[in-house]
Amino acid sequence: MKLNFRILFLTLLLASSLFASQKVYKLNLATTWGPTLSPLFDAAKNMAVLAEELSNGRLQIKVDAANKHKSPLGILDMVKGGQYDLGHTASYYWKGKDIATLPFTSMPFGLTAPEQYAWFYYAGGLELMQKVYAKHKVLSFPGGSTGVQMGGWFKKEIKSLDDLKGLKMRIPGFAGEIMAKLGVQVTNIAPGELYTALDRNSIDALEWVGPSMDIKMGFHKIAPYYYTGWHEPASEMQFLVNKRTFDKLPKDLQKILITAMRLSAYDMYVQNYDMNATAWQEMKKEYPNIQVKTFSKEIMDAMKKANQELRDEMSKKSPELKEVLDHQDAYMKKIREWSKMSDYLYLKDNI
Amino acid sequence: MKLNFRILFLTLLLASSLFASQKVYKLNLATTWGPTLSPLFDAAKNMAVLAEELSNGRLQIKVDAANKHKSPLGILDMVKGGQYDLGHTASYYWKGKDIATLPFTSMPFGLTAPEQYAWFYYAGGLELMQKVYAKHKVLSFPGGSTGVQMGGWFKKEIKSLDDLKGLKMRIPGFAGEIMAKLGVQVTNIAPGELYTALDRNSIDALEWVGPSMDIKMGFHKIAPYYYTGWHEPASEMQFLVNKRTFDKLPKDLQKILITAMRLSAYDMYVQNYDMNATAWQEMKKEYPNIQVKTFSKEIMDAMKKANQELRDEMSKKSPELKEVLDHQDAYMKKIREWSKMSDYLYLKDNI
Repeated sequence: MKLNFRILFLTLLLASSLFASQKVYKLNLATTWGPTLSPLFDAAKNMAVLAEELSNGRLQIKVDAANKHKSPLGILDMVKGGQYDLGHTASYYWKGKDIATLPFTSMPFGLTAPEQYAWFYYAGGLELMQKVYAKHKVLSFPGGSTGVQMGGWFKKEIKSLDDLKGLKMRIPGFAGEIMAKLGVQVTNIAPGELYTALDRNSIDALEWVGPSMDIKMGFHKIAPYYYTGWHEPASEMQFLVNKRTFDKLPKDLQKILITAMRLSAYDMYVQNYDMNATAWQEMKKEYPNIQVKTFSKEIMDAMKKANQELRDEMSKKSPELKEVLDHQDAYMKKIREWSKMSDYLYLKDNI
Repeated sequence: MKLNFRILFLTLLLASSLFASQKVYKLNLATTWGPTLSPLFDAAKNMAVLAEELSNGRLQIKVDAANKHKSPLGILDMVKGGQYDLGHTASYYWKGKDIATLPFTSMPFGLTAPEQYAWFYYAGGLELMQKVYAKHKVLSFPGGSTGVQMGGWFKKEIKSLDDLKGLKMRIPGFAGEIMAKLGVQVTNIAPGELYTALDRNSIDALEWVGPSMDIKMGFHKIAPYYYTGWHEPASEMQFLVNKRTFDKLPKDLQKILITAMRLSAYDMYVQNYDMNATAWQEMKKEYPNIQVKTFSKEIMDAMKKANQELRDEMSKKSPELKEVLDHQDAYMKKIREWSKMSDYLYLKDNI
């Protein structure tokens, strides 16, 4: 019977090591978005589903929407503090806490989506982002691009800089600071009250996202001028990961998590491109009077000037921000030439 | 001792089922490309590395470059016949065998890369591609986009349709048929002899890919006119998978394989965008006399007309091709409006 005991022992040892490799890791993720905000919430959800499938159930990520955790703009703090293992959000929301996180979402007159992905993955952008987030003990990864965001809905046509002076507009964040420099009266109104405010002329204009997300808000029913984008040419969402959580995962689950984030980010960009096309077609069919407008050169030049002044002020205060902006600028100078030769000149002859 | 035997039996049963879930699957993949053709070969290689990492070694894919299997344009047959489990190639190489496979790479004056990914993944394009390939018992997936390919290198400036008449140009495939309709003397020359042919004026012009892949060929040293793209606005490579091989994989390895292909495809697009920008910068620095040109409206209109005539002829012969082209056309009509409002109008003010 001695032999049998030896076999039993060895078999148990082997089975236990195989069991260990089958251990289930349960993580939780908080999003800035509500559960119906497509495609932003979808990106987080798709990532979690993919991670579970790739790991054959060994990596399970529970996704909490903002209505669950009640802290849509507290994601960085919650992931940092370990209340959540992961977050899905946008880097520029931490501008007030850490100005150097701003450029990883999008900068006015900055990189387009393919340019920005090239910067993140093939030109050092991701490494810069990790460096900025390291002080928070958080890892940060691209989480999906909206592509070009529209410049917003206006009740009246904006022909000159004078038309902007005193105009009441809802446009938050850095773009709002630029608009304020041009004399716009920038206001902040909760999303749920925006439609009524625009309808009752409490505001004259507002910026939201683009057709895919604007359509549900209904702004196209009451404001006929839809201006093209300048301030967020490729807003990239971010996945945040608590570093201690990440370090405790086995190597293959780390790779699975990174892969699931990277793929769901690209997919969100493509999904939103499709959703924008579809939503725009619907809007235009229902409201054929909507006019797509581009701000005049006079206005664009004033915006560019204000943008540069604000960037210079911020850069003086933060060498870390300056490093990121300079890095982006140098890359844009190089890659924009290619965008011009390829996408731009191709589209020019085919629109 | 009865109890011990029972434990031994159950433990062995459990261990054997765990072992089964750890079984290693070894597949092989043939590429159309040589081992140094970046980023095309990289996409296949990166896919294989990623699949192995995600599966913790359970899915191992050996990648053979064209110099190994000696059949760069025989990939479909080899995957169909089971000689290889997978292939990495481009769908339009089977135009002669199965005309309906043509539009899944790129069509002249067709979809751009983000538009095409949206079509594949969110508008039924992938399902159409699987339907076309089903008769070959092969699965087909996007394998990476080159983005806009350039129109080629010309020794003399092309100002009118007359300048094209009798011009000796290397431009293969469907684009070559269009050029032939315009009076171009289309020739086929092996890649290794192209530089010499252009240098010695055996040909007046040639089409290759774009800066990232053209730079090694050296054409920019001897032909100063670099024309922008029209014939391959977003050439998507394809992964082919033998259906029997795929069906035999466990569910989680199928998901891992599909994920690895999808991610490495997106990555190739972004990698090539970066490589194009870098290569173009180098070319221009070394040869500042290179002039980027766009074909005149007269020439473009003639190309578009020839393109439409050829498409109509092919569609009459193949209802299956017609179905794919009509589907693409309808989608392009919708999504191009969004590309115009977003990427095009943004770039217009920022180049």
